[in-house]
Amino acid sequence: MSKPVVLRLGQVKYAQKAWEELSKIAQVIPIDPSLTRAQFLDQCQDPESPISKAQILTRTFPSVKNTGRFDAELAKALPESVVAICHNGAGYDQIDPTPFGQRHIQISNVPELVNNSTADTHVFLLLGALRNFEYGHRLMEEGKWPSGGAAAGAPVGHDPEGKVVGVLGLGGIGRAIIERLKPFGFKKFIYHNRNRLSSDLENGCEYVSFEELLSQSDVISINIPLNAATRHMIDKEAISKMKDGVVIVNTARGAVIDEPALISALKSGKVRSAGLDVYENEPQVPQELLDLPNFIGVPHMGTHTVETIQKMEEFVVENVKSVINTGKVLTVIPELKKEGWINEAKPLV
Amino acid sequence: MSKPVVLRLGQVKYAQKAWEELSKIAQVIPIDPSLTRAQFLDQCQDPESPISKAQILTRTFPSVKNTGRFDAELAKALPESVVAICHNGAGYDQIDPTPFGQRHIQISNVPELVNNSTADTHVFLLLGALRNFEYGHRLMEEGKWPSGGAAAGAPVGHDPEGKVVGVLGLGGIGRAIIERLKPFGFKKFIYHNRNRLSSDLENGCEYVSFEELLSQSDVISINIPLNAATRHMIDKEAISKMKDGVVIVNTARGAVIDEPALISALKSGKVRSAGLDVYENEPQVPQELLDLPNFIGVPHMGTHTVETIQKMEEFVVENVKSVINTGKVLTVIPELKKEGWINEAKPLV
Repeated sequence: MSKPVVLRLGQVKYAQKAWEELSKIAQVIPIDPSLTRAQFLDQCQDPESPISKAQILTRTFPSVKNTGRFDAELAKALPESVVAICHNGAGYDQIDPTPFGQRHIQISNVPELVNNSTADTHVFLLLGALRNFEYGHRLMEEGKWPSGGAAAGAPVGHDPEGKVVGVLGLGGIGRAIIERLKPFGFKKFIYHNRNRLSSDLENGCEYVSFEELLSQSDVISINIPLNAATRHMIDKEAISKMKDGVVIVNTARGAVIDEPALISALKSGKVRSAGLDVYENEPQVPQELLDLPNFIGVPHMGTHTVETIQKMEEFVVENVKSVINTGKVLTVIPELKKEGWINEAKPLV
Repeated sequence: MSKPVVLRLGQVKYAQKAWEELSKIAQVIPIDPSLTRAQFLDQCQDPESPISKAQILTRTFPSVKNTGRFDAELAKALPESVVAICHNGAGYDQIDPTPFGQRHIQISNVPELVNNSTADTHVFLLLGALRNFEYGHRLMEEGKWPSGGAAAGAPVGHDPEGKVVGVLGLGGIGRAIIERLKPFGFKKFIYHNRNRLSSDLENGCEYVSFEELLSQSDVISINIPLNAATRHMIDKEAISKMKDGVVIVNTARGAVIDEPALISALKSGKVRSAGLDVYENEPQVPQELLDLPNFIGVPHMGTHTVETIQKMEEFVVENVKSVINTGKVLTVIPELKKEGWINEAKPLV
């Protein structure tokens, strides 16, 4: 019996050993880094191409440059043999679950493992935004110290004391953020999810409506996935309901915020400062945003650590091995848990 | 009986009300912001000047531009009437305690109140240095995203997991830092003080020698005051004993580090990154340091918050009131606790 065929979209940075192990039980096909979407779609249906034999696909966020979005067109083009797509990332908004579900193709993501490094990034941006640290850094770089006076002229920031943190999306990352923020002395943590959590998962956070979250928070911490319902959830109207001088931190997905509305609110001071790891059209970031001194941002570095990247890459391999050995991915995305979308488990070997 | 005379060196930002209250029981003399050291020294001895009647001096960090350092020359020039100097700040390296102690002039600082905001700054810089966040920010600002690849080309950072944090100077600020860092998942906290603390103050940190701290730490967190014994404690030799790729964070005083030695180690990669709030010759910061992408820094913003500045200013007034009512400052600096240096307490009213 021949080995199961695994198509690997995207590069491996640190999990070489896990992939070597996998290649003992699977035929691994790495893709040509210069592959285009048109070539990919063609080769899926070309019996001469090894891609047409693929049973499991693994993919990374940057591999979108080779394949484009995993949408209905791509789902239709995938060979009959494909049973699972193992995505490397917590967020999987590059994939439209429906057309794959309809074809009974499983999709897995990498939840949990990203929580800590993303939460660390979030706390960095939150402190930076609350304290105007990037503002001060920028003035120092511009040679405004000592001429600008104390802190090179950066506006005086604020302490956590007395401030309410509103978590939009209290999941694994949101909880990791709150665990980290607890010793800093904030007044209160409130959260909004579509549905209220059980009290053990709430861990002391107070459940409020979306409107209450907007109106009561001094700091708004965004941790919701991007989908049709959450796109531009923070728009001009939502911002208008916030406290004057609110601080916004987003390490989830850029398009949860209407970016031009945020830029305008940062300019007016309605939003005092924003800490962003993600952008609406990343890797494009508007120059207008980059130029604002009350913006502190990094280029999608939420999980950009040796330890976390390695664990995520290794977990993708674990998902592949699980499909080979049991027929099931370990972490199927919730959208696929529909009647009739998941076939009976059938090991590949 | 006339009101005690309080000379106020430096500006009041947020504690106007406390000073108004004080002016009911004291004669407050604010100084001309353009005063020079020469003028100050002259007026101290000029019977025509109200400065010559001062009994209590309050001072701020920036007021050094009016008076220069509080050194032997200044101690000698102060009027006979002066009994106390109430300094606004935790660090008081602008003051040489000895000549004032010899004159039986009390000196107070503002400890404790600075702990939280300084620790917040420290955690921000530590996360930034560990994760290369400023590196990524800089590349994004330079337009290297997407051309630089993931994270705009910033080197992959590290998670706290498995890392040892070495705290040089476990006092109030060091403890506040550790309280904040506990949820982040570091492997171990070690510390070095001149003397080992009692176990309740250690709070789980392991006491090590200075040499052990240098050789075992993945992150070195500096929280010691600047004095003759600590100046350049982190020099070329100390750095050579550190782990390759160590991260250094300093929110104490710049001159604890030999800055050119640090710059050289940042260039070679011996020190992977540094997070600095303080500089050896601040407000002058070497362009060479500012240009390094593995440097994340802010212009002495450790206590740059509305809440903390107000509390510190109000505490200075409390020290003044204590001198007026009891003859003693509330928080005398430890160097003055010598036999014969503190007079018997004698209220000023």
